Amino acid sequence: MVVILKRGVTQEKKEQMVDWLKGQGVGVHVVDGEFQTVLGLIGDTRGIDMDLISSLAIVESVKRVTESFKCVNRKFHPEDTIVRVGDVEVGGGNFTMIAGPCSVETEEQIVEVAKAVKAAGANMLRGGAFKPRTSPYDFQGLKAEGIELLKIARKETGLPIVTEIMSASSLPLFEDVDVIQVGARNMQNFDLLTQLGKIRKPILLKRGLANTLKELLMSAEYIMAGGNEQIILCERGIRTFDDYTRNTLDLAAVPMLRELTHLPIVVDPSHATGLARLVSPMALAASACGADGLIIEVHNDPMHALCDGAQSLTPEQYAELAKKVARVREAIRP
Amino acid sequence: MVVILKRGVTQEKKEQMVDWLKGQGVGVHVVDGEFQTVLGLIGDTRGIDMDLISSLAIVESVKRVTESFKCVNRKFHPEDTIVRVGDVEVGGGNFTMIAGPCSVETEEQIVEVAKAVKAAGANMLRGGAFKPRTSPYDFQGLKAEGIELLKIARKETGLPIVTEIMSASSLPLFEDVDVIQVGARNMQNFDLLTQLGKIRKPILLKRGLANTLKELLMSAEYIMAGGNEQIILCERGIRTFDDYTRNTLDLAAVPMLRELTHLPIVVDPSHATGLARLVSPMALAASACGADGLIIEVHNDPMHALCDGAQSLTPEQYAELAKKVARVREAIRP
Amino acid sequence: MVVILKRGVTQEKKEQMVDWLKGQGVGVHVVDGEFQTVLGLIGDTRGIDMDLISSLAIVESVKRVTESFKCVNRKFHPEDTIVRVGDVEVGGGNFTMIAGPCSVETEEQIVEVAKAVKAAGANMLRGGAFKPRTSPYDFQGLKAEGIELLKIARKETGLPIVTEIMSASSLPLFEDVDVIQVGARNMQNFDLLTQLGKIRKPILLKRGLANTLKELLMSAEYIMAGGNEQIILCERGIRTFDDYTRNTLDLAAVPMLRELTHLPIVVDPSHATGLARLVSPMALAASACGADGLIIEVHNDPMHALCDGAQSLTPEQYAELAKKVARVREAIRP
Amino acid sequence: MVVILKRGVTQEKKEQMVDWLKGQGVGVHVVDGEFQTVLGLIGDTRGIDMDLISSLAIVESVKRVTESFKCVNRKFHPEDTIVRVGDVEVGGGNFTMIAGPCSVETEEQIVEVAKAVKAAGANMLRGGAFKPRTSPYDFQGLKAEGIELLKIARKETGLPIVTEIMSASSLPLFEDVDVIQVGARNMQNFDLLTQLGKIRKPILLKRGLANTLKELLMSAEYIMAGGNEQIILCERGIRTFDDYTRNTLDLAAVPMLRELTHLPIVVDPSHATGLARLVSPMALAASACGADGLIIEVHNDPMHALCDGAQSLTPEQYAELAKKVARVREAIRP
Repeated sequence: MVVILKRGVTQEKKEQMVDWLKGQGVGVHVVDGEFQTVLGLIGDTRGIDMDLISSLAIVESVKRVTESFKCVNRKFHPEDTIVRVGDVEVGGGNFTMIAGPCSVETEEQIVEVAKAVKAAGANMLRGGAFKPRTSPYDFQGLKAEGIELLKIARKETGLPIVTEIMSASSLPLFEDVDVIQVGARNMQNFDLLTQLGKIRKPILLKRGLANTLKELLMSAEYIMAGGNEQIILCERGIRTFDDYTRNTLDLAAVPMLRELTHLPIVVDPSHATGLARLVSPMALAASACGADGLIIEVHNDPMHALCDGAQSLTPEQYAELAKKVARVREAIRP
Repeated sequence: MVVILKRGVTQEKKEQMVDWLKGQGVGVHVVDGEFQTVLGLIGDTRGIDMDLISSLAIVESVKRVTESFKCVNRKFHPEDTIVRVGDVEVGGGNFTMIAGPCSVETEEQIVEVAKAVKAAGANMLRGGAFKPRTSPYDFQGLKAEGIELLKIARKETGLPIVTEIMSASSLPLFEDVDVIQVGARNMQNFDLLTQLGKIRKPILLKRGLANTLKELLMSAEYIMAGGNEQIILCERGIRTFDDYTRNTLDLAAVPMLRELTHLPIVVDPSHATGLARLVSPMALAASACGADGLIIEVHNDPMHALCDGAQSLTPEQYAELAKKVARVREAIRP
Repeated sequence: MVVILKRGVTQEKKEQMVDWLKGQGVGVHVVDGEFQTVLGLIGDTRGIDMDLISSLAIVESVKRVTESFKCVNRKFHPEDTIVRVGDVEVGGGNFTMIAGPCSVETEEQIVEVAKAVKAAGANMLRGGAFKPRTSPYDFQGLKAEGIELLKIARKETGLPIVTEIMSASSLPLFEDVDVIQVGARNMQNFDLLTQLGKIRKPILLKRGLANTLKELLMSAEYIMAGGNEQIILCERGIRTFDDYTRNTLDLAAVPMLRELTHLPIVVDPSHATGLARLVSPMALAASACGADGLIIEVHNDPMHALCDGAQSLTPEQYAELAKKVARVREAIRP
Repeated sequence: MVVILKRGVTQEKKEQMVDWLKGQGVGVHVVDGEFQTVLGLIGDTRGIDMDLISSLAIVESVKRVTESFKCVNRKFHPEDTIVRVGDVEVGGGNFTMIAGPCSVETEEQIVEVAKAVKAAGANMLRGGAFKPRTSPYDFQGLKAEGIELLKIARKETGLPIVTEIMSASSLPLFEDVDVIQVGARNMQNFDLLTQLGKIRKPILLKRGLANTLKELLMSAEYIMAGGNEQIILCERGIRTFDDYTRNTLDLAAVPMLRELTHLPIVVDPSHATGLARLVSPMALAASACGADGLIIEVHNDPMHALCDGAQSLTPEQYAELAKKVARVREAIRP
């Protein structure tokens, strides 16, 4: 940690500060510049409160030298983490195609979509049973019943299932789910993250609407610090002033996260754009910049979907896209 | 709801669309313009999926005419809601001063701060027992013990207590708390909101980091639709590209929300700026534009606060501020 | 245009409003809904002031039905515009590779880079002569001399040259430049746009740091309304709260603009990310989602570049990237 | 400047780096931490390219210790700057009320508004002659004629006049203008800023739509580095994801800028909100947090204003507001 003192601080104040810092258990190295003095803090500075120090009258600013995330940090774990979901491997050079409807609606619907996306090359099935909706008057999902329908679809197709959790209190219902998704609005629901750290099941963690990459990694750190190391990160668009698309898909997050962490990174172009006709181009772009997989909404009848029909592909469109994704993956091979 | 069709749509497609909409139970009024056709939907359109319609090939765009929030809407409830907390009335022309430390640390600390803020004019005590922290390695609050200490401080001073909840599963611990706070990161934790709708206790709902006023109102609607009508809204800064302050305090939200809803609106200048020296000017500004109250961090020893010391006022600074706030309130009287 | 009136407006006020609107030369169609009344305005509404109407006491909100951009609108000009720069065609299915250093520094440097990028497959040379810098103390470019050096490089390689203009007053210096670039910070320098509308030379118009796609198109409309139809749009990243990358590259802008306009769209991954190691993945992503070309910073000695060395590729890295871009372009062919 | 090296850098590389830095003319102080090494650069580091250094393979990150703005920095000029405009003093504890219509329309209109705002307590008159408009089809202002009309209004009332410039080429027309305004969209029109640095006339510099405080100060530095020290800064709202107001007024900028610079800071609540009914509360808030003045749109007939009528106050509303502003100013007196 580096502490920059204000111009013209007296020698006495400086020494008091140094003593106080040493009292916190860190070494202090003083660098006197022409205009200002910089203190270099040596040792384990994780317990030092940056905000507090930066508020002191004699301090200009403070900068952390070491990142505050550790378990998820590639520096301390250089090899790619591979998350295993049944026979499917996520990360480490594999490419995972997760697809399915926004909401599970009926047995017929989910089984039909599952078969269609499997035929098109998907290797995991997604479907919402618990639906976070902005309005209390909108369809909230089939809940427990939806999970049962997903299991039927899994039985029929062999595809592992991914579905979203909205509260730790419903964890018992997720016991037989293959991957538990944490939605964007719950990325900083620290209570939920802590509970998910205690189980041993893969978590698909979506980036929040206006969260930085560092915050996403800190949320993954919450889960990992609890002992659950099976985490898949998901970029799904951030909120900007954009007028035509629902969110702004931040694809540079893919190579940036690749550097910062060993965890796999998938992209959700459906929620990022909110428009079915933009899903294919953005899915191809995500593949081209090195994503480990795609999570895409597919519905056999988007016109009558109970939610988010606007951004769903038909099975035919998805099959077409899957072929192109494979070609793009081939094209970027080193 | 208004549906704008694309240029050059055939008469046949237009009629199909109109029929389909009528099948959804709404009346349809067709307005043929020079360039484009507009459909006016009449009746209860809350069940109509805007996103779905806007994704249809022949549709240019869709606009809701009636807001989707109802219980919290001033249109349907013109008088100010007054939230009663013991003897304190929030809203309806009253001004509420909530103050206290970021975290409850010890009995001595919380009782001392409670007495100090009471002496300075505060009429409610805040203090964090459950602390949402970005990092799993940061201090997470005293939890149940913290709530007990708050109760002791209440007993000593008579001040009602406000403290944050992080999960519906800890609701039993909040039974004797006066106002339950929902933090910015949980503003769209819909499961929590739903549970809070079932109790009969005032809720202080903070605006999320990157949430619109409409989303804030929809979250209040979640609570109110459940039957709990005692809600206090709180503006606490939004995330922008800002470099010097932690967040951007959006004070125009105060008069704007005043128009849209009958619920009281308080402002938190401490979290909004993250800097103790900006708290007073922003508190005065909030008072000048009509806020119903202020929630401010005060600590008897900010240098040693376990969290957010950087943004805490001392009791002396708070007492000084409280006097100026009263003068500003007087100055804007009509 | 659609005007939505507030609930409970009297018949008299409504009629006054309708009369006033008719007096502005438009037809008015009244749709009375259960809760609210909607007025549909028919005819040429471009002269109607939306902001003014929405401020009237009886008006709830106003929505334009027809976009305010016209010349650049694909609706009125369905075929792709092809911008011709010497032998190079931009748009209409062609792919344009523009490359070169951030700043022109010396004859040796610009000629060497020009040869290198040409050998790697670039078909246009970029180089800054006038440099917009945040600080008045930073290097501001070689100005007139820089343009002369670019012409020498063009003579040596045959590559057309692209360089940025900062003021209409320097237009005479750009007479022999092939493409004039308008930088992000000047996207809404309306005086400059108006002057560029009067010449007959291709303009490369960069999206502003925080401008919407609609504003980008309105700025192109400024140029086109003046009679200059040779415009290339450029997405170069927008400002968000991002911590690791300089800007957020908004690639969904590519397919979205494709729908809205007939103008070609190129992408600048160098300024968007600010980091050389992110340029290649983002260039591949841009190619995969259908961009018409790439503008990339290349320097023979990034370590000693006078500006933005941090985001420059070496000629070797660029040659490698160019090969992959060609493969990705092949992969997405329908 | 502080350079943080990556973990595990070899001694040899570190020494090369230190030598290279010394070659750039700065002293280097090495601090070896447990995990990482920090280099403290001593001396004049303004010529060192931070971006370049941060791109080096062995560098983790770089941080400037001294701000890059100097002339405008309060550190080097602790006393408030007072800008003198005729008899009016801006800054240094004075409060300036600038008011007038968005656009100058006719002699009658501008003279009438000028008299009305003077009677209400304004001490400067604003009015747009050159209007930056998003659309080329919107009213662009009366230009030279508008400036003539402003001079007539000045003659009639004695109020100094403030009006916006859009290009350095029209500077001759502004010779007899009292304060030249640089609009938000031109805040980084560096060519214009450079020209304005050469004249000796007060400049009112508005913050750009998505510019940081540091960038605003750097733009002021451009003008000041040229020798023109008469600058008034203006906060006028920034762009966020907001739905109900046009922009987000960032009032914390007022006390923050107060710390960073000695220049006066005024607030424009009209453009910040875009809604006449929010202007008064936000003007009072700006006064309460210490602004040096207000620039407000007033029109005698907002319903028929040629532009931005939606956000204009009537003279009566302005007079009412001016009284309250005076009371708030009184209330916050120390």
